[in-house]
Amino acid sequence: MDAVNIGAMLARFSEHWAPKKIAELNDYDIKIVKIQGDFTWHSHADTDELFLVIDGAMILQLRDGDVRLAPGELFVVRSGTEHCPRADVETSVLLIEPRGVVNTGDAGGPMTTESQALT
Amino acid sequence: MDAVNIGAMLARFSEHWAPKKIAELNDYDIKIVKIQGDFTWHSHADTDELFLVIDGAMILQLRDGDVRLAPGELFVVRSGTEHCPRADVETSVLLIEPRGVVNTGDAGGPMTTESQALT
Repeated sequence: MDAVNIGAMLARFSEHWAPKKIAELNDYDIKIVKIQGDFTWHSHADTDELFLVIDGAMILQLRDGDVRLAPGELFVVRSGTEHCPRADVETSVLLIEPRGVVNTGDAGGPMTTESQALT
Repeated sequence: MDAVNIGAMLARFSEHWAPKKIAELNDYDIKIVKIQGDFTWHSHADTDELFLVIDGAMILQLRDGDVRLAPGELFVVRSGTEHCPRADVETSVLLIEPRGVVNTGDAGGPMTTESQALT
């Protein structure tokens, strides 16, 4: 049994806004994603969502203002809270949320994608 | 609303084997802990437990062998799996598990402690 090296997993893909599952914790998925530009405004009615920036810089746009995250910083978006992730430079993020959560939440649209597993 | 800076939170305490809660994700707690030396062999019957090393080096001793974790590496100990964390140098670790999980699991003993919140 080996540890999961987040950097090595990040080196295995390049596309943006396509989360990859790297581990499971009970019924939660641990995912990594590379982002750049604006995502889409959405919310998740039934679950919080954790964002931990690995490298780069992310802005979590909320209706009440922006939360800026540098590497080593995390933020939990509460269930039902509209948010729109944004990154002005390519940014790598660790995501934790229950298995099966749709990335675009209630909004749907062309950025909707299912997570793939990196094993 | 501000992001949680893991490094700044780690700077606020020095004791070992005393997890501090830094965020909540639904009914899970996000905790940080500083460790050095050996913990105690234990397991959690009802839940997995995620370890992500922030700095230092951790060895997750399992009955089947050791898992070595460097910074940026994570491992999920499955429910029911006996484990004994160890660190030969002072090591900082992010832990994620359901709220209320006892750190020593089924083993109890003098290293049992409740998590405090860093807010």
